[in-house]
Amino acid sequence: MLFRQLFDKESSTYTYLLADLTLKEAILIDPVLEKVERDRKLLEELGLSLRYCLETHIHADHITGTAKLREATGCLGVVPDKADNSCADRYIKDGETLQLGSITIEAIATPGHTDSHITYYVNNDRIFTGDALLIRGCGRTDFQGGYAGTLFDSVTQRLFTLPDETLVYPAHDYRGHTVSTIKEEKQWNPRFVGRDRTNFIEFMANLNLPDPKKIMEAVPANEHCGNLVEGQDNKIPKVPELSKQGE
Amino acid sequence: MLFRQLFDKESSTYTYLLADLTLKEAILIDPVLEKVERDRKLLEELGLSLRYCLETHIHADHITGTAKLREATGCLGVVPDKADNSCADRYIKDGETLQLGSITIEAIATPGHTDSHITYYVNNDRIFTGDALLIRGCGRTDFQGGYAGTLFDSVTQRLFTLPDETLVYPAHDYRGHTVSTIKEEKQWNPRFVGRDRTNFIEFMANLNLPDPKKIMEAVPANEHCGNLVEGQDNKIPKVPELSKQGE
Repeated sequence: MLFRQLFDKESSTYTYLLADLTLKEAILIDPVLEKVERDRKLLEELGLSLRYCLETHIHADHITGTAKLREATGCLGVVPDKADNSCADRYIKDGETLQLGSITIEAIATPGHTDSHITYYVNNDRIFTGDALLIRGCGRTDFQGGYAGTLFDSVTQRLFTLPDETLVYPAHDYRGHTVSTIKEEKQWNPRFVGRDRTNFIEFMANLNLPDPKKIMEAVPANEHCGNLVEGQDNKIPKVPELSKQGE
Repeated sequence: MLFRQLFDKESSTYTYLLADLTLKEAILIDPVLEKVERDRKLLEELGLSLRYCLETHIHADHITGTAKLREATGCLGVVPDKADNSCADRYIKDGETLQLGSITIEAIATPGHTDSHITYYVNNDRIFTGDALLIRGCGRTDFQGGYAGTLFDSVTQRLFTLPDETLVYPAHDYRGHTVSTIKEEKQWNPRFVGRDRTNFIEFMANLNLPDPKKIMEAVPANEHCGNLVEGQDNKIPKVPELSKQGE
């Protein structure tokens, strides 16, 4: 499997490229609208066709590149099944598997940051955790149907029960870390170490974070796969023109 | 070998952590002053002692974390042998090898960005190229004894002759790429593809880049391993107080 981690400095978002080199087909996890040209160029240089764009969740801090990539490449947009989203080509739910050649992706439901959040478990050795589990942190739980108790359960019951050596690739990092492991997070993540569910809920309730700068445009746009209406401050998304592509 | 890539957003600098897990000893390549606490914390959490800090070259865009790390951990500072630097614990030159348990690091002289630039070739499968070779780019050649012809020779004769699958880890990236390969850079790096030495020299001479913001403080500080004098705008470095530690 070819694997690349890509970074958007503005939103501190990681996008991940996975590819099967026999099929010459690729998957992007959590692409960012402003980075679509970078990602397309890299795919082209590597001789890869983009087959799927996977979202871990409906993001509030950046707009997904999925619609633009779908329009350009014909890839399929894959979104968690309970997400407020009407334009995905495929909805994926807990326990479902997506296969691309040698790449096996298992969906693990990890709600709490949002109510429809999926962690992607790839080839039994790495997880793409979106905003559920960050390196020495976790996503906030104060909007989009988030709830701290649910996130605590997702992380401690679904992720911390994976093998210790599992690599953890989050959707964001703000301190310059790129990867961690389940062992490290169980041992050192200050959001979870030494806290029970009640204590975690109390801690998260007192974070008092400001809203993400882009939330008013990002959430509605991402509910429509990243499609925007021009000339309307990008606040009202356009339903995608492309017909849904069955798999 | 444990391997971690770390990023400083302000200067877009990558620092690399390599560690032998039997010895529990680590190496940092190109640490950044402002990120020393992050790096120390990570080393501590991973149960690692820092043995060496390696510089690929005397940086002009950020101040090295080596002096501060040396003071805190007793690690040894390793610097290219021709660098204008009087405080290193060890100077390393082309062809020399540094061994730490299972980690073999071979020094490849790659001058041109600066006159004393080293690429570190680790375990015959990855290179840490500093500013000599960037992903789809290269370092500038208009100060610190830089010369475009020399950089062209370094990249095309010393790096592009390594095996195609060699992983390329640069000291910077400004577009969010994290890694490349020699094959990709030979095929797609626009600074080198389709250019001969003369054309490259002409191209580099016409870049007309502004000086890096921190050059006036970074270069003198880095010539002294990152030591600064407080209260003097950090522009006049202090000779390190620690006695040189022999190896």
